[in-house]
Amino acid sequence: MHKQRGEKLWYIPDGYIPESSSGELTSHESICVLNTSSEDALIKITIYFEDREPMEDIMVVVAGRRTKHIRTSTLHQGGMPIPVGVPYAIEVQSDIPIIVQYSRLDSTQAENALMSVMAHPIK
Amino acid sequence: MHKQRGEKLWYIPDGYIPESSSGELTSHESICVLNTSSEDALIKITIYFEDREPMEDIMVVVAGRRTKHIRTSTLHQGGMPIPVGVPYAIEVQSDIPIIVQYSRLDSTQAENALMSVMAHPIK
Amino acid sequence: MHKQRGEKLWYIPDGYIPESSSGELTSHESICVLNTSSEDALIKITIYFEDREPMEDIMVVVAGRRTKHIRTSTLHQGGMPIPVGVPYAIEVQSDIPIIVQYSRLDSTQAENALMSVMAHPIK
Amino acid sequence: MHKQRGEKLWYIPDGYIPESSSGELTSHESICVLNTSSEDALIKITIYFEDREPMEDIMVVVAGRRTKHIRTSTLHQGGMPIPVGVPYAIEVQSDIPIIVQYSRLDSTQAENALMSVMAHPIK
Repeated sequence: MHKQRGEKLWYIPDGYIPESSSGELTSHESICVLNTSSEDALIKITIYFEDREPMEDIMVVVAGRRTKHIRTSTLHQGGMPIPVGVPYAIEVQSDIPIIVQYSRLDSTQAENALMSVMAHPIK
Repeated sequence: MHKQRGEKLWYIPDGYIPESSSGELTSHESICVLNTSSEDALIKITIYFEDREPMEDIMVVVAGRRTKHIRTSTLHQGGMPIPVGVPYAIEVQSDIPIIVQYSRLDSTQAENALMSVMAHPIK
Repeated sequence: MHKQRGEKLWYIPDGYIPESSSGELTSHESICVLNTSSEDALIKITIYFEDREPMEDIMVVVAGRRTKHIRTSTLHQGGMPIPVGVPYAIEVQSDIPIIVQYSRLDSTQAENALMSVMAHPIK
Repeated sequence: MHKQRGEKLWYIPDGYIPESSSGELTSHESICVLNTSSEDALIKITIYFEDREPMEDIMVVVAGRRTKHIRTSTLHQGGMPIPVGVPYAIEVQSDIPIIVQYSRLDSTQAENALMSVMAHPIK
């Protein structure tokens, strides 16, 4: 049995899906999850907005001893994706400890720009 | 009632509003706040400089279950904005726990550059 | 004797070696380790993937009172390097406390993009 | 009297002063310090290398209630600056608690790239 590492609750206040792309790469964000344990991690994502109610209970599974780099543009709730060009924030809740990092590639202009942060863990 | 998450006091030592922009995007910085609780968070921002007294008591409200991505260029104290092209640092104090991230888009040159950090929490 | 600083176990969920480079600089990632103590640090790196078993027991030594900026493209296990263009995650385990930061330079397009995070420490 | 905030010891494993610049901006790194207290902070910087002995006891003062964004290219020890184009790591030790962030602007290619991390605090 491999050990669980990290925390069960993580936050990323600065979420944003760029509206447009140019050049070779597509603008995107990823929620990068690492599950070091032998079991699956069942993850529940909540999306907070500036001016409307949160999107809740978006479910993702990350298998044991695996990483998953989740494109936020693939997340849906009731068939609705996260809107583009709108500031939002992300909550990642897991049934077992995981480690979470967030990265964004912005290719709105011809050349790409990158940013990345470790999500903020709650113990 | 939704739970409060995070800390009440956060710091960002590297603040800087670029003087100029070019291309499609405007240079800007954002203080990204997430308030997971059901109540409003009353936030008091202090701006520290290299060579003058701090700007104190800039107030912002972030509603419950909402995020707010605060452009630093919109912050004022007695009608005065944060000066551009000057190194500064940011203190974010809240009456209830919040989570704070800081991001900067620099488009001084034709293509944009991005950076982001989770602010440093004080327990 | 100089003091040991940091932690023995660190995680970076967002690893990625860009497939191509253009312009003056080569795309690369670095695992940047600082060993403040007087002794050598013996480091064991594990690489986790989305769809296959981890690469384990990649060994690196960082001398006492030295830093080492380890290019991930130089890491091998049984003669096999980390595959390019594939999302992965990194575990850094050391026999003594160290400090670990991760940075990526992406020059897929003509101009370079940079990102960096402090790895997530486990106490 | 204003309160001291943060920690006395901080680490940044990934230091690097780019060798060249192009375009409008000069490549540079900054160690951004915030001293929230009423007293001066006396700071002692150590630079660690991959293949030589550390540069020790580089002294900097950050006044009370002030920030200082220290360009690493301005740091000297016995008249010697930090060499350019060489990987290194940074230790920031203060006599009172401070908060430390590290940022790099790389304009080796025509457009600039930015990265930033909160330094790793030791309690």
